[in-house]
Amino acid sequence: MLLLTKKDIKRIFSMQDAVEADKQAFRIYSEGGSVVPLRVNIGAQNYEGQTLFMPGYVGELDSMGVKIVSIFPHNIEKGLPTVPSTMVLLDGTSGEVCCIMDGTYLTQLRTGAAAGAATDLLARSDAKIGALIGTGGQAITQLEAMLTVRNLTEVRVFSTNLERAQSFVARMQGEFANYGTVLRAVTTSEEAITNADIITAVTTSQQPVFNGRLVKAGAHINGVGSFMPNMQELDDYIVQRADKIFFDSQEAVLAESGDFIIPLTQGTINKDKFTGEIGKVISGILPGRETPEEITLFKTVGMAVLDVVTAYQIYQKALKQDIGQEFLFE
Amino acid sequence: MLLLTKKDIKRIFSMQDAVEADKQAFRIYSEGGSVVPLRVNIGAQNYEGQTLFMPGYVGELDSMGVKIVSIFPHNIEKGLPTVPSTMVLLDGTSGEVCCIMDGTYLTQLRTGAAAGAATDLLARSDAKIGALIGTGGQAITQLEAMLTVRNLTEVRVFSTNLERAQSFVARMQGEFANYGTVLRAVTTSEEAITNADIITAVTTSQQPVFNGRLVKAGAHINGVGSFMPNMQELDDYIVQRADKIFFDSQEAVLAESGDFIIPLTQGTINKDKFTGEIGKVISGILPGRETPEEITLFKTVGMAVLDVVTAYQIYQKALKQDIGQEFLFE
Repeated sequence: MLLLTKKDIKRIFSMQDAVEADKQAFRIYSEGGSVVPLRVNIGAQNYEGQTLFMPGYVGELDSMGVKIVSIFPHNIEKGLPTVPSTMVLLDGTSGEVCCIMDGTYLTQLRTGAAAGAATDLLARSDAKIGALIGTGGQAITQLEAMLTVRNLTEVRVFSTNLERAQSFVARMQGEFANYGTVLRAVTTSEEAITNADIITAVTTSQQPVFNGRLVKAGAHINGVGSFMPNMQELDDYIVQRADKIFFDSQEAVLAESGDFIIPLTQGTINKDKFTGEIGKVISGILPGRETPEEITLFKTVGMAVLDVVTAYQIYQKALKQDIGQEFLFE
Repeated sequence: MLLLTKKDIKRIFSMQDAVEADKQAFRIYSEGGSVVPLRVNIGAQNYEGQTLFMPGYVGELDSMGVKIVSIFPHNIEKGLPTVPSTMVLLDGTSGEVCCIMDGTYLTQLRTGAAAGAATDLLARSDAKIGALIGTGGQAITQLEAMLTVRNLTEVRVFSTNLERAQSFVARMQGEFANYGTVLRAVTTSEEAITNADIITAVTTSQQPVFNGRLVKAGAHINGVGSFMPNMQELDDYIVQRADKIFFDSQEAVLAESGDFIIPLTQGTINKDKFTGEIGKVISGILPGRETPEEITLFKTVGMAVLDVVTAYQIYQKALKQDIGQEFLFE
């Protein structure tokens, strides 16, 4: 059994690798090549915590896994992570646990790469300006994904707390200096998105975080944050206005994300608007962007198959490069 | 995160410890103090394998876990275990994975201890003769449990393959020499059970493995092997004849075990015969054995709460005695 830390993963697995892994996962999912049983949710009421067990299986890779994610808000009082996570990967040819890795970084990586894959497929190839709305735990890899798939001159970063945006930008300027992109904290979301070619929203907001009327023709938008019915980052306007709307899993988005549940319930959009799953663009079944003026929108809530495929590819690379710590139960 | 091998567990956790852990688990289960979501089953058809994810939560111990068990019959051709298993234990106060241990040995231990706990509660205190039917992967801890809870002079071991029984006895005589009990391979199950005070059946047989008419008054019987509707170790006679019938979980037994599903379907027994859960004997809600002449029967199919409680107690002992290998994801 191989044990992989965040540091191990960072050493061997780039955002570009993660984007390729997510594309593979999207394709496999849309082809029906994965098995994703219902996640199991256990509540720890005394601690206002809950733990999710998210199993998945990908036959094509002979790979199986369960990601364990806990949400324990009171951990912060103990100096512990509030969303600890561990990924358990199994060899699908033998049923044996073959690798355990940091699930928190895996999640950040595959979530950044999900929007990265969609951006790579849907954004204009000459995109120059990015906008990032939100500076929480998932924001770093969202920024990295944007920088990886397009050659951007500038990314504007907005948070409702300006100081957070400034401190985020200061840290990221060091981290991502090699991309040669100017990162800039801005004071309003209008300033962030006006004239932006790529817009990524990654907040847990219950109110839309930018004005859809200000989105320029030809832009690509990623909705990453809203994963519960009461969370809504995207306003009705932009959901109506977008020329093409893609999902990681339409079924999951319509079950979980307020970005779509709220306007569907209110009748301001209907399902005819939806283009389909991003995996079908990868398979060539659906076209992606067809004109430079289209506004494309990608909504992701995440799925276990992203975890299994990404973890599998990380594990394969770690084996090849002899990275990580081997532990024998015998 | 602490990593514990079989050797680590054996060093610190005795069968007596396991019997106490299982008693605690049975009590908690019967008091409604555990949460056991439906297990998730994923099939790997190309390998005729399947993997079960069995989550459980015990609030009283602030403990949570998922046992991963794979059944891959073709592993034997590759020299790998056919039923590999790993236990992942979480700290229920923080949701963090705190320990990973050998799930195969954990299963053997808690399954032996389940029958051990029932035997301790239900067998006559002057029991002298044991009978063990079956010499497969679960048999060693079944024998150990029997030897632990009663001071036996003799245990007779029966397998449909005499050589297997002889080789099993030869190995066990070394392993359990300190109990001072004579172990004897016998050629028929009649020889094994005639006059036996404790009978444990641990086979996957689809036909009853002993003649219930030969069970002596005052005996205690453990049915351990039948965990699928088509498996039947216990004959109709003994299920009718037993004065008291206890279960680990009545719901689980009636859903899974042919020992009860078959005679219930055929109408040869009815549910009025059932005494109840063993946990209620531990809580004092139900009486156990009331006379020396009663025949008592305990049927177990296993439950996730046994895994969580036993793993938790192993982990606590390992922490105290500084056993195992610590791995930091940071």
